[in-house]
Amino acid sequence: MESQVDVVVIGAGLSGIAAATRLKQAGLSVAVLEARDRVGGRLFSRAVGNGVFDLGGQWIGPGQRRIAQWVSDLSLQTFPTYDGGKKLVSVRGALRTYSGTIPKLGPLELLELHRALSRVERMHKKLSARTPWKHPDATALDAQTVEAVMGPSLTRPGARAAFDAAVRTVFGAEARELSMLHFLAYLSGGGGLMNLVSVAGGAQQDRIVGGAQQLAALAADRLSGAVLLEAPVRRVVERKARLCVVHDKGEVGARYVIVAVPPQLAMRIVFDPPLPAAKRHVLEGAAMGATIKVLVTYARPFWRARGLSGEAVSDAPPFAVVFDNADGDRQAALLGFVVGQPAREFSALPPSRRRTVAVAELCRLYGSDAADVQDYVEHDWSEQPWTLGCPVASPRPGVLSLNGSALRSRCGRIGFAGTETAREYCGYMEGALEAAERAAAEALAFLKA
Amino acid sequence: MESQVDVVVIGAGLSGIAAATRLKQAGLSVAVLEARDRVGGRLFSRAVGNGVFDLGGQWIGPGQRRIAQWVSDLSLQTFPTYDGGKKLVSVRGALRTYSGTIPKLGPLELLELHRALSRVERMHKKLSARTPWKHPDATALDAQTVEAVMGPSLTRPGARAAFDAAVRTVFGAEARELSMLHFLAYLSGGGGLMNLVSVAGGAQQDRIVGGAQQLAALAADRLSGAVLLEAPVRRVVERKARLCVVHDKGEVGARYVIVAVPPQLAMRIVFDPPLPAAKRHVLEGAAMGATIKVLVTYARPFWRARGLSGEAVSDAPPFAVVFDNADGDRQAALLGFVVGQPAREFSALPPSRRRTVAVAELCRLYGSDAADVQDYVEHDWSEQPWTLGCPVASPRPGVLSLNGSALRSRCGRIGFAGTETAREYCGYMEGALEAAERAAAEALAFLKA
Repeated sequence: MESQVDVVVIGAGLSGIAAATRLKQAGLSVAVLEARDRVGGRLFSRAVGNGVFDLGGQWIGPGQRRIAQWVSDLSLQTFPTYDGGKKLVSVRGALRTYSGTIPKLGPLELLELHRALSRVERMHKKLSARTPWKHPDATALDAQTVEAVMGPSLTRPGARAAFDAAVRTVFGAEARELSMLHFLAYLSGGGGLMNLVSVAGGAQQDRIVGGAQQLAALAADRLSGAVLLEAPVRRVVERKARLCVVHDKGEVGARYVIVAVPPQLAMRIVFDPPLPAAKRHVLEGAAMGATIKVLVTYARPFWRARGLSGEAVSDAPPFAVVFDNADGDRQAALLGFVVGQPAREFSALPPSRRRTVAVAELCRLYGSDAADVQDYVEHDWSEQPWTLGCPVASPRPGVLSLNGSALRSRCGRIGFAGTETAREYCGYMEGALEAAERAAAEALAFLKA
Repeated sequence: MESQVDVVVIGAGLSGIAAATRLKQAGLSVAVLEARDRVGGRLFSRAVGNGVFDLGGQWIGPGQRRIAQWVSDLSLQTFPTYDGGKKLVSVRGALRTYSGTIPKLGPLELLELHRALSRVERMHKKLSARTPWKHPDATALDAQTVEAVMGPSLTRPGARAAFDAAVRTVFGAEARELSMLHFLAYLSGGGGLMNLVSVAGGAQQDRIVGGAQQLAALAADRLSGAVLLEAPVRRVVERKARLCVVHDKGEVGARYVIVAVPPQLAMRIVFDPPLPAAKRHVLEGAAMGATIKVLVTYARPFWRARGLSGEAVSDAPPFAVVFDNADGDRQAALLGFVVGQPAREFSALPPSRRRTVAVAELCRLYGSDAADVQDYVEHDWSEQPWTLGCPVASPRPGVLSLNGSALRSRCGRIGFAGTETAREYCGYMEGALEAAERAAAEALAFLKA
């Protein structure tokens, strides 16, 4: 690695790797400094049984053109998430099957859920995902949590269960923690709540053959030695238009830095001089979601034979949602999402108890065949010191309306990438690429000026 | 410093020093590891002109029995904050004088403010400061911000100005960021909002001759070499009932650790194994207040001759409140608080512009004599990497009702002190001592068991 480069990128997640790729293509020298012993950040694939599975981000949906192009550029293939058959909904212990996107609930429950979702849709359509803080009601919406706004109209258990499962899975957070302004902006930038919770035709439609981590790893390979692993950045010191980036293995000099790590990790880097107060506020004010992925492999996808898609929505711990997560025909699997507060409660159980609880719940949902587990794998993102949570960090109430304009703004020679700074599909791989595109363009413009 | 001790205390603020003092008195060996090159944390005194001034915490109020005892044990003296004469209130550019605690506003404004304050008082009296999460409406209150609850009833500028100044000064935060549940619990534990904003008879009544930092420094001297400075702790590794505390100057082995740093700094320490998810959530979910103290010294306290106390409340930037901050007869001074979002905006100005703006505002409030500045000193706590803000960290909406029970709970061999974990006077020196008392008692009980 060069000790002097044009641009240092902090973080070798998809966004950092994509920004570095663009800068290198433009003829600049780059160094990517990564704290972990691997690239990929929230993309993390692992061989389990006969398949390869994503313990982090894994899905691509229609309309996500940047990631589709990225997949194609890397000569990777996608395959559809299995979606045949009926889905399950479990409310207060009662299990039903349904088709389509909205769980089968009682008529009054369905009415209530429809009303709530329509209200959310009406609200987010009036709001710009890019600059929600400019909305005339920004202060009032940001001073409200999703719970405060939506809770009172979700009085029936089934409607409440479906809403909570969606919020927890999309954000990794509880409704009472989420700013209503951010919630609406996030939905607006992601094509709406129904898009974000749908499989076919929605954000869970397709997966990457061989695992999504390749989206970062193959691109990193093309950066020919520019990525340094196990090199967490501790300080960025600016003196006389030069930046010195201090990491655990040494220092790199640069003319520009792109920070491509989640906000709470960016906050841990000591910037000298300090970042502007408004920037620090949006970084400190972002809460990482709580997500534990539980992958259970089976000899065969027995639920399919019973006409089930494998998809389930539930109000019973530990899983808010479950998906058929087969790696094509190579390995049958179910994937459960333990998200929001239930993730913290699940995490407090001893490991053997967690497995017992998880498998028992799969048996309740899919029948006793679910007990014939091949492999059981958990990944708790909140325990990862170099991510701190998944899927995404959300600005807490009040933050976006006060200092949202600092969210993605460049601070002199320091720019910001990462899916949290995306204007579209924040929280998704598409957003990671969109943010990288913007951050790389800012760097190029700054260095040419 | 010993390389093996009974207890390592992380952080040499008042709470850490007090915990270490108690443990040493009980016969245990202790090491206090401090990131800065000084002890005191949020207590930081500095000689300016002929006086010594506190750029951090400085006030002690009636009913704070632990800190009164601590002052006495260290043979320190207190003196009253100057409180003679009339106070100023400035709303939308109009300046009035008043006496007592409630600013002089128009009758309808006063009525509105009284109603709002009475409502807050009624609510916080029903709530336990120690366990607010057990309140029957905890979820609903925690899903609301102070803005959402109080904003609609504060429609008149004067009432709004007085309320905002109080909230910003007490928390360093905006009403739209603060959980209503935490707001009420904080007031409940601090004797009510009127107590927290009052000088004589309230939380700003008395100061320490020679500066409040001595409260930590003199006690640290008595720990005879147990305090190591410039030793930020990076990792705490537990193996076989022994803890290894890794800092920038080496390692210390211990049987027990007390974390006595603000929540956001505790989050930056890598614990191996990780802290429980609920504990991580309350640490990550705490927002440090934004406070810049602006101290301006004068040859004489010219405002007193005009019958003014020096105290002012204002809705105009930069100061929410101003106090007469004379160091007895030794040095006249005014102290302005730039707090909440106005602190971020003030911080974005160039230094010379900040001084111009601040002095111009003092001239507007106290007359043109305020232009004859001797020394001008600012201290922006948000820029301090080993504090990150002042006066206190507040749990963001949703956090306290979800995981408040983890706020001060011991995690095996790891205990928690610091004013944020106090059951009484959270955010004050009294709270720092109360938390230290509890954390030391927990350590002793654990190590004796």
